[in-house]
Amino acid sequence: MKLLEKRILTEGKVLSGDVLKIDSFLNQQIDVKLLDEIGKELTRLFKDENVTKVLTAESSGIAIACFAALHLGCPAVFARKSKSSNISDNLWTAKAHSYTHGNDYTMIVSKDYIGPEDRVLIVDDFLANGSALTALVSLCRQAGAFVVGAGIAVEKAYQGGSKLPEFEGIRIESMAKIASMDPEKGIIFE
Amino acid sequence: MKLLEKRILTEGKVLSGDVLKIDSFLNQQIDVKLLDEIGKELTRLFKDENVTKVLTAESSGIAIACFAALHLGCPAVFARKSKSSNISDNLWTAKAHSYTHGNDYTMIVSKDYIGPEDRVLIVDDFLANGSALTALVSLCRQAGAFVVGAGIAVEKAYQGGSKLPEFEGIRIESMAKIASMDPEKGIIFE
Repeated sequence: MKLLEKRILTEGKVLSGDVLKIDSFLNQQIDVKLLDEIGKELTRLFKDENVTKVLTAESSGIAIACFAALHLGCPAVFARKSKSSNISDNLWTAKAHSYTHGNDYTMIVSKDYIGPEDRVLIVDDFLANGSALTALVSLCRQAGAFVVGAGIAVEKAYQGGSKLPEFEGIRIESMAKIASMDPEKGIIFE
Repeated sequence: MKLLEKRILTEGKVLSGDVLKIDSFLNQQIDVKLLDEIGKELTRLFKDENVTKVLTAESSGIAIACFAALHLGCPAVFARKSKSSNISDNLWTAKAHSYTHGNDYTMIVSKDYIGPEDRVLIVDDFLANGSALTALVSLCRQAGAFVVGAGIAVEKAYQGGSKLPEFEGIRIESMAKIASMDPEKGIIFE
């Protein structure tokens, strides 16, 4: 998606430690028109899949999920991230690791909102090593839901997260795919 | 807003400890069509205020903020909640207390996204004792921004949060105002 690539090149800041800061339009300030366009593009790509739920993780995934769900005509659901290992009969839980924050966390969603009748489109702001996406896929599989695919805003393709064996058979569509990223040399897209 | 009151009566669960659970359409699963309607209603109410930013707090405020911002034609911004007292030159911070979770936290937003030129509409999912809203107002005042008002999905009016002296001069519009709430007697709106 050229629109997103352009914004990343204009406003994105590549920091040390492999961090891409796009706070000005996605991770703190939200350019809702841009995210609405991402929602429309995901709808174009997945419109024949009879999506019943769009699943994401708090917090930065929520805006993308809302606009995708609006155009797909289904509800959005967001998994919460907890530092404690919540165990409850009514929760699907999956462990994940944040390389950005250097901590483990548990992804949690109520069993009331993802079930075996669901055809789920997972969306998220970033796909890097694939840890968050692995956890979201795990929540769906525990629920017996079918994952129609994953829609990602920004994929750090050089990290290879989308190639994990856990994602075999899952169609992953990224709106911007970064081939390489460096504080000095800048960002190169695939 | 009758549409929202109806959904609260149909799907809301009043739990002990003064908790209203509306996870099925707002706090975990998001009925994006309903939230889009809330966004349109907030736009109708505040359209003459030249709003430049819609500010909310993660996570449940984000969806409301996105739809309000889309219709108002401005960006949304979400403050993060941190358990640690983040101090940085580039952050506005304000303390708040969650009665639901029984803990203190710090509301944080980058100085890059709220400034003296801004006319801010604050939105949130709940207004109860007013602690979160006080913190969001404080972030705006630190930034020198003008608060045009607050748009709330569900106000527990019986708690009197909207009457705090901190909110004098701030127009608060709640889409559903609960006059009383009890696990046995149910919910009565104002």
